[in-house]
Amino acid sequence: MRARDLITDLPAVTPDTSIAAAARLLAQQRLPGLIVVDERGRPVSVLPGTQVLRLAVPDYCQEDPALARVVDEEHADRFLRSVADRTVRDALPPRPRELPLTDPDATLLEMAALMARTRSPLVAVVDDGVLIGAVTLQALLERAVPA
Amino acid sequence: MRARDLITDLPAVTPDTSIAAAARLLAQQRLPGLIVVDERGRPVSVLPGTQVLRLAVPDYCQEDPALARVVDEEHADRFLRSVADRTVRDALPPRPRELPLTDPDATLLEMAALMARTRSPLVAVVDDGVLIGAVTLQALLERAVPA
Repeated sequence: MRARDLITDLPAVTPDTSIAAAARLLAQQRLPGLIVVDERGRPVSVLPGTQVLRLAVPDYCQEDPALARVVDEEHADRFLRSVADRTVRDALPPRPRELPLTDPDATLLEMAALMARTRSPLVAVVDDGVLIGAVTLQALLERAVPA
Repeated sequence: MRARDLITDLPAVTPDTSIAAAARLLAQQRLPGLIVVDERGRPVSVLPGTQVLRLAVPDYCQEDPALARVVDEEHADRFLRSVADRTVRDALPPRPRELPLTDPDATLLEMAALMARTRSPLVAVVDDGVLIGAVTLQALLERAVPA
């Protein structure tokens, strides 16, 4: 079993993609995160789903989630609208983290080692430096768990 | 929209559950992590999926994932067998992290604030202290993303 057998298509996301579009992709494709690429398709960062929320949720609510309760349900449902004008660039972690990058020949163990080391539930699969897809923790476990 | 409208059933996992069983649940239910409860059903920890891999992958592979390539494909496919005798207790983070706990009345904004603060893609929903299910980042985004 190699990375190429487990690969999932990933939509292209760049630092200029809007946060609203990134949130929609995360929701539609049920991904744990997105891989951000540069203009030549080379991965530059991982955007965890929770990082999108960090941008969308007001700071006072993050410091004390109980304060979010004072916002009524109708407005609470629409909190993502507040990030309409922000982009993926604004949501990237300030310090670049090690990227979980591998190639199509990687084995299950190699991908598991990379996920464990970087604590990422998603590894980017690159061919000649260009992103061709990703392998998720779920896809990996489905194959690795003894029947 | 409240937590009770988005809740997902979660299988009960305790510190004594085997890692093999935890990995199987993560794979079968496509969850980003598991909530660990005590004997009275009260949440005591979150077990991220990547933490299961940290236990299963030999240290030398985590320090340098390229070293994993020397393991042939047949053995690489079976790396999870090495944790047959370990339990969830062995995989829990050494320092207890803030638990993402909420109640059935929580709004989308409250749950988003909790996920953002704890960087957890899963919040545990408790009723009278006892775990009744969880809300995932995906479920939350599906409702929060403007159509």
